[in-house]
Amino acid sequence: MDVLVKDLYTESRDGLTSPITISGWVRTIRNSKKIAFIEVNDGSYIKNVQVIAKRDQLDNFEDVIKLPISSTVKITGQLVETPDAPQPFELHADEVIIDGVSDPDYPLQKKAHSLEYLRTIAHLRPRTNTFYAVFKIRSLAAFAIHEYLQHHDFVYVNTPIITSSDAEGAGEMFRVTTLDPDQPEQDDKGKTDFSQDFFGQETNLTVSGQLQVEPFALAFRNVYTFGPTFRAEDSHTKRHAAEFWMIEPEMAFAGLPETIDEIQGLLQYVVQYLLDHAQADLQFLNDHVDEHLLDRLQQTVAEPFARITYTEAIECLEQADADFKFPVKWGIDLKAEHEQYLAEQVFHKPVFVTDYPRDIKAFYMRDNADEKTVAAVDLLVPRIGELVGGSQREEREDVLLDKLHEFNLQESDYDWYLELRKYGGTKHAGFGIGFERLLMYVTGMDNIRDVIPYPRVQGSINF
Amino acid sequence: MDVLVKDLYTESRDGLTSPITISGWVRTIRNSKKIAFIEVNDGSYIKNVQVIAKRDQLDNFEDVIKLPISSTVKITGQLVETPDAPQPFELHADEVIIDGVSDPDYPLQKKAHSLEYLRTIAHLRPRTNTFYAVFKIRSLAAFAIHEYLQHHDFVYVNTPIITSSDAEGAGEMFRVTTLDPDQPEQDDKGKTDFSQDFFGQETNLTVSGQLQVEPFALAFRNVYTFGPTFRAEDSHTKRHAAEFWMIEPEMAFAGLPETIDEIQGLLQYVVQYLLDHAQADLQFLNDHVDEHLLDRLQQTVAEPFARITYTEAIECLEQADADFKFPVKWGIDLKAEHEQYLAEQVFHKPVFVTDYPRDIKAFYMRDNADEKTVAAVDLLVPRIGELVGGSQREEREDVLLDKLHEFNLQESDYDWYLELRKYGGTKHAGFGIGFERLLMYVTGMDNIRDVIPYPRVQGSINF
Repeated sequence: MDVLVKDLYTESRDGLTSPITISGWVRTIRNSKKIAFIEVNDGSYIKNVQVIAKRDQLDNFEDVIKLPISSTVKITGQLVETPDAPQPFELHADEVIIDGVSDPDYPLQKKAHSLEYLRTIAHLRPRTNTFYAVFKIRSLAAFAIHEYLQHHDFVYVNTPIITSSDAEGAGEMFRVTTLDPDQPEQDDKGKTDFSQDFFGQETNLTVSGQLQVEPFALAFRNVYTFGPTFRAEDSHTKRHAAEFWMIEPEMAFAGLPETIDEIQGLLQYVVQYLLDHAQADLQFLNDHVDEHLLDRLQQTVAEPFARITYTEAIECLEQADADFKFPVKWGIDLKAEHEQYLAEQVFHKPVFVTDYPRDIKAFYMRDNADEKTVAAVDLLVPRIGELVGGSQREEREDVLLDKLHEFNLQESDYDWYLELRKYGGTKHAGFGIGFERLLMYVTGMDNIRDVIPYPRVQGSINF
Repeated sequence: MDVLVKDLYTESRDGLTSPITISGWVRTIRNSKKIAFIEVNDGSYIKNVQVIAKRDQLDNFEDVIKLPISSTVKITGQLVETPDAPQPFELHADEVIIDGVSDPDYPLQKKAHSLEYLRTIAHLRPRTNTFYAVFKIRSLAAFAIHEYLQHHDFVYVNTPIITSSDAEGAGEMFRVTTLDPDQPEQDDKGKTDFSQDFFGQETNLTVSGQLQVEPFALAFRNVYTFGPTFRAEDSHTKRHAAEFWMIEPEMAFAGLPETIDEIQGLLQYVVQYLLDHAQADLQFLNDHVDEHLLDRLQQTVAEPFARITYTEAIECLEQADADFKFPVKWGIDLKAEHEQYLAEQVFHKPVFVTDYPRDIKAFYMRDNADEKTVAAVDLLVPRIGELVGGSQREEREDVLLDKLHEFNLQESDYDWYLELRKYGGTKHAGFGIGFERLLMYVTGMDNIRDVIPYPRVQGSINF
């Protein structure tokens, strides 16, 4: 049975008896007349195995040295410790079985490729070291999130993807339909007759699972979603995609302080998990993508995040020696430039900003006693800006009803949501993390398209 | 700080010093003149705490005993062991703070409700014991799946939800669009102009992540998806929903035997995890929903699953003393009645059926040497029928190309998929598990709508 290269780079190498067998892809071959050095990657680890193949030991030496990059081989040989070499060990091949010969026009030859080009070959880019590291980290971060929340008694809830409601009364949505695009059923007035559509009414892709997960918090106390969400927005920034994943924890019998504690606890857990389980991947990214990455992650787990109110943040920005594109005054929604300034220039670390003006936040956030602000919190982090948004929810039925009207939302669209206040309502709070924003923070990648396996943005869909 | 009821039902109760405080929902109140028995559930556990409240100790005794069901309370009191009572302990209240008074017309009064009725109040049904157990198990099962796969070096990949391709050339799809439903942009011929749609072409909701995850198996060796998938099918059975979650592991350097081993390993791990972590929930379902549940789960982990070929299965069905609605002969696709007969009547446990006729299976499955069958496997389980489907994938580029043509699929739609065979192709295999089918198996629930938080089926979408 194959040994995994991942295990060769750990202590479990000591327990192995040669010969061992590995299967993998040829990354490079250098050879002289008598000897060849073959770098093989088996997918289990970012690092390769250096294989030494000798002409006088292999019948098929000539075939082996001609193998195009990315060909697959099965190699049996002796594991040799090399304490003085850059690699800690080598594999001296007794046998090289050629499993699959790749086409020589393989696009990923040794030279470096631009991230833009690699996006066009999303089916091959995870074979590069950079994307190997990014998508390995994506997987480990997702698991760390589940592990933290499960071990803290949060129940995972799969809220629906197709929805008849618009979670926040904001955000452009994708319509989901089975009507004939050319000849949709129509009503008496010549309008599309959605009663003939698959679900008997107009439906969209979800922009957030929050409203649908709140009922579960009132049954299980602590719950969370972790799934895809969608925005059909006409934005072409490096931080926006049409399809992205969100984590949305929700807690009953909890307010803003508990929310802040959970955000910090969860993020520090994820970062520590990556420092423990993705060392080689993070080191590669630190060496080749973002030289401050490891420092930033070490600092993230080393100390508590900063905390200020929105009002303090505005004062701080008004006094800032910075040339903002968007002018600052109390009441504005903070822009990326403001958020980054606070995290990068003022605090040099993640900072919680609390108690935003009620008029710029969603209707479901709980009004503070000052009647000007709501019990909301955003977490701003260096390089990214807003990473997390949370709030205590308005649990007072009469106040919530007033806010629905004030925000011009239809009461009838929220009847079940209002019932949560009528039956067993209590203080509750929650937050949402943009998973890809988190991945940009923990990988150093600069564009959201480079942390998504197959990114979906306006005007572009492949694979 | 609140103590969680979940912890009261474990050994950690011994470490607590009274008084303790809990917050939760009132499930029932019985009272005499001087004393009240209040069952409180705090969401962390399926079982309640019995609270003893005495008139002479509480100023607000009159208010407390009038509380409608589902009101929220915060109770501080003395924890008293009751070794001779049905409950192992009680909480003798020193103080009952009324947190929220529920409306008295709360729909979930003490009497039992039909599952059909409860579906209409999906925002409240997780507060019933049955749905509490089901959705707690859903969460634990999801985590167990991640844990098993991560610990077996599988990398989690989020394949796209919005797609321009149809994974299997089969299955009705939902269209995703931002075009105006009443006045979509049209081309010269009066047809809908999809170049004006959000992504510049027609797009759909995914029916499977398999094709898009295969490239990642050829980079990471072992990978998996776990996300929502969609079928716009006109079927109203108890086993079909329009939106459901699938787990799709994919392995490089692996064939059908490894696939079978992983399916069994994963499912046994999940079931054992539930037996270990959801005892009280499973016991409730065994007592109230399916009296064979615990026996079935114990047997699932106790012994290997059965294994037969499709050809053997057909012989077995032809000889069966059963009155099938659909006649049996070699070449048919097995129907639910056949699958259930094999699992329930013949093997009395899960059974792998391998090597199906090539003509009834997907184009990407690897042709066997007999040229009649493919290296496919389905796992059939009692009560459900097909739970898992897997196969070795056709890695030979020329054979795959021939099959694309034979199955009337457009070569141009699969150019990148074909390139996986051209560059670094190797033996690989994978499988898909319908998460909700698995949940029906491990909960005893009979209808897929009762294992999904907010089910989506044709003609029905709420919340």
